[in-house]
Amino acid sequence: MLGRLNHVALAVPDLAAATAAYRDTLGARVTAPQALPEHGVTVVFVDVGNTKIELLEPLGEGSPIAAFLEKNPSGGMHHVCYEVDDILAARDHLKASGARVLGDGNPKIGAHGKPVLFLHPKDFFGTLVELEQA
Amino acid sequence: MLGRLNHVALAVPDLAAATAAYRDTLGARVTAPQALPEHGVTVVFVDVGNTKIELLEPLGEGSPIAAFLEKNPSGGMHHVCYEVDDILAARDHLKASGARVLGDGNPKIGAHGKPVLFLHPKDFFGTLVELEQA
Repeated sequence: MLGRLNHVALAVPDLAAATAAYRDTLGARVTAPQALPEHGVTVVFVDVGNTKIELLEPLGEGSPIAAFLEKNPSGGMHHVCYEVDDILAARDHLKASGARVLGDGNPKIGAHGKPVLFLHPKDFFGTLVELEQA
Repeated sequence: MLGRLNHVALAVPDLAAATAAYRDTLGARVTAPQALPEHGVTVVFVDVGNTKIELLEPLGEGSPIAAFLEKNPSGGMHHVCYEVDDILAARDHLKASGARVLGDGNPKIGAHGKPVLFLHPKDFFGTLVELEQA
């Protein structure tokens, strides 16, 4: 069921500074920032060849990463996202296995325009897992 | 400089339970556990096609992930590892850019038998970054 790693998301308090660190200090290819107001974040993609790193900064009120940054003011690793071929089949398998899907259990359209689900970190040893329809 | 994502490391308090969750609940391919006493961990690799997830459980006294699990008893995302072509050139560039290399600044032989360095998480917005010679 679990497909490739789509991205690793890192929450950062200062996207411009983080982008500069990845571009200049680590020598990575980075995109221009994209504001995603409907998702409450501004994102920069770091292209590492086989997958991507997403640097996320809160945007607007009620950002989904605001509480994380309150607890981790310097930033930190926020979630990992895996691709699945069939997100509804994956959801049904997960629920039957006892894993908790966050929200109402139905896929939402994620930041890449595809259906996504988030799984409860307590069911995956403290890691927030996102699944995205491939 | 920054090459592909070699792995994402997740620290877990119970490797058998975490392996079962990735294999059975998420439907991923997992390896048998490997004890790496010289690195203070037992590891299971989760193959996600384009990269790998490493599930790490402390092994023996003074495990490098023991303090992390004391702070995060359920487990959590521990570090990301990127490949570099020339780890000494990378180290020199990083130090010249003001980034702090952990330890004495010299590469050590990592869990895959290749030279590795760890960078101070405060220089990378709360994320512990490992670099591994490709």
